[in-house]
Amino acid sequence: MSPFTVVFYMDVFEDPGSTREAILAAAYRTLCKHGYADLTVERIGEEFDKSVSLVYHHYDGKDELLLACLEFMLDEYRAETGTGPPAAPREAMAAFCDRLVVVDAPPEDRQFVRALTELRGQAPHNEAYRDYFTRSDRFFRTRIETIIQAGIEQGVFRDVDPERTAGMIHTILAGGFFKYATSDGDEWLSDLREELREYNERTLYQPDDP
Amino acid sequence: MSPFTVVFYMDVFEDPGSTREAILAAAYRTLCKHGYADLTVERIGEEFDKSVSLVYHHYDGKDELLLACLEFMLDEYRAETGTGPPAAPREAMAAFCDRLVVVDAPPEDRQFVRALTELRGQAPHNEAYRDYFTRSDRFFRTRIETIIQAGIEQGVFRDVDPERTAGMIHTILAGGFFKYATSDGDEWLSDLREELREYNERTLYQPDDP
Repeated sequence: MSPFTVVFYMDVFEDPGSTREAILAAAYRTLCKHGYADLTVERIGEEFDKSVSLVYHHYDGKDELLLACLEFMLDEYRAETGTGPPAAPREAMAAFCDRLVVVDAPPEDRQFVRALTELRGQAPHNEAYRDYFTRSDRFFRTRIETIIQAGIEQGVFRDVDPERTAGMIHTILAGGFFKYATSDGDEWLSDLREELREYNERTLYQPDDP
Repeated sequence: MSPFTVVFYMDVFEDPGSTREAILAAAYRTLCKHGYADLTVERIGEEFDKSVSLVYHHYDGKDELLLACLEFMLDEYRAETGTGPPAAPREAMAAFCDRLVVVDAPPEDRQFVRALTELRGQAPHNEAYRDYFTRSDRFFRTRIETIIQAGIEQGVFRDVDPERTAGMIHTILAGGFFKYATSDGDEWLSDLREELREYNERTLYQPDDP
């Protein structure tokens, strides 16, 4: 079992099914180890047990490779969580939030969150990263919105504006992510998880005893 | 009046009172214009109407200068908002939140938010930036906590846990900031401002008619 168990663990990175997946897995591990600034295709090649030239055969440079890696991870996450309405919206919302506000994550997980924040930092001046993160934001926000809509339709969520409430929850998750990546300490994480649960109770879920 | 009217405008940058302040003002303008990655002391020197060597006389390099600029802005903000309990906690909380979730900000303001996010992206591997952002996070969180405590003492806020609620509001603001910096579009900003107002109504403020 990889130490990246909680948020970003990709089964397929443990047992890649193709050369392409093996290269992406090496890119992921190298990014966690060195961060973006110190990353080179040579280092990814060292992590990859074949060769640097084989990496170059598939990808022109580190940004193209990293973007392919991010895209792959997002596709895997999407396939795992699905895109349709969940059968049990309340449980789906709780699981979604808890997965993204991780308490007691292994240090490697934080390394990845930090690296991801460095990559987001490229977005202002790099169109390909900006395009990726705009799409990935939209995916997560739409996923939250779909869960909320299902909850309203099943009568277990209040009659909120799904888009606005999804935007708020997405912003809370983005804020937790950003703080986790760029400051020391994580004693506030369990408080945030609890506050987010209370937010969902107060704003979203129909009370059990109306 | 500078275009940086809303969040980060520093009067003193318009009319610096010393060589040091004039250099910091030049660093701020250059950072907004070029972002962090393309910033050099030479460019700051061009923006500063004296000379590059005078900049070097005061600061060893771009990071030392940028950190001095950040520190200066935080000090100015602190002096302006004060650190003691506010006389009118509800108005203070509303003003604090509205100031940090800015709708219709001028483009230059976003440039600064983007640059600030690039600087935060240095935090994982640069101790001086990490130290600065850890302290600046603590300042903003403590400010929110002080407002909440004053509101509870005056009986106008509910009896929440000030530290936890401050952490949540701080996370929401950080999330808005992060999304604003690293994605396109800002149609969601006015929704976020409204959601945050509703959050404060629902969670923090005592209802007008109990």
